Amino acid sequence: MKEVVSGLSKKIRRVPDFPKKGIIFWDMTTLFKDSQGLKNTVDAFVEYYKDKNIDCIASIESRGFIIGSVLAYLLGKGFILIRKKGKLPYDTIEESYVKEYGADTIEMHKDGIEKGDKVLIIDDLLATGDTASAACRLVERLGGEIVGCAFIVELIELAGRKKLRDYSVFSLIQCKEDE
Amino acid sequence: MKEVVSGLSKKIRRVPDFPKKGIIFWDMTTLFKDSQGLKNTVDAFVEYYKDKNIDCIASIESRGFIIGSVLAYLLGKGFILIRKKGKLPYDTIEESYVKEYGADTIEMHKDGIEKGDKVLIIDDLLATGDTASAACRLVERLGGEIVGCAFIVELIELAGRKKLRDYSVFSLIQCKEDE
Repeated sequence: MKEVVSGLSKKIRRVPDFPKKGIIFWDMTTLFKDSQGLKNTVDAFVEYYKDKNIDCIASIESRGFIIGSVLAYLLGKGFILIRKKGKLPYDTIEESYVKEYGADTIEMHKDGIEKGDKVLIIDDLLATGDTASAACRLVERLGGEIVGCAFIVELIELAGRKKLRDYSVFSLIQCKEDE
Repeated sequence: MKEVVSGLSKKIRRVPDFPKKGIIFWDMTTLFKDSQGLKNTVDAFVEYYKDKNIDCIASIESRGFIIGSVLAYLLGKGFILIRKKGKLPYDTIEESYVKEYGADTIEMHKDGIEKGDKVLIIDDLLATGDTASAACRLVERLGGEIVGCAFIVELIELAGRKKLRDYSVFSLIQCKEDE
């Protein structure tokens, strides 16, 4: 296991067989309810991205919102919502993909970003990379440029980084699912 | 209309007939993507709650997460997730309620808070108050004490404040649905 913040992974609970048998779910609620855990997580992202050229932060519903919005606030950037299909009220574009637990579709508002915006994508977990990859496609279809993809946890055996090979990927914890 | 932060309501888009005909949806995405709008919103909550005795911030999925997590970070508190049924992986308690657009059930982890914790509930919109009221019941069933309920927008005609009469309610914008 590699950690940018020492001891961070211990604050994340592993729940076996959720949402289905055989999956070990990385439960971030124990990290977020720990004020120091929340602070260390966000501060590590701020440290890494504070000098990068970023226009806005886009996060994927809904755990991604928790980290992404704090980062947007601290970096003084706008925060963009990427949501499951049917949740955003205005004109949207969508991308469908197959993920670890089944098919899914995510959406962004068409006016979520402007052409040329430099966008950082952030989510809690990088598994297969299918969700993040779909998020990148949404941003690019609207003329945005992906500055990077950031995650708290990257499960290295699922090779999500390979699927995101065109982008700069930064994770606070790199490890195996059962580590 | 009453606003704690002047001009804030203009940054929120109103989308007619979403999620169903006759509803005017207050679309916070335009507020959050505006870095100054996000900052002004959060800062107004920080100003109001910074000297209050609070142990943790609990927010309701998923737009509530966006404001609640920033507030938790800035006040140095833990952040607790209240989610739709089936999303939380560990042992939960649940509350069901009827809201503006139909029935719903929300959950918290049983170990989300400790007995005696002073909890601030925050969400983007106070409409009928049924969701926030269910959130308060979850916290209280776990032995927590509600410090207050905070919202960006309060739709006064729907009388949510009356449903939350046992609690201290603070909203940045008080107005009618079509204002």
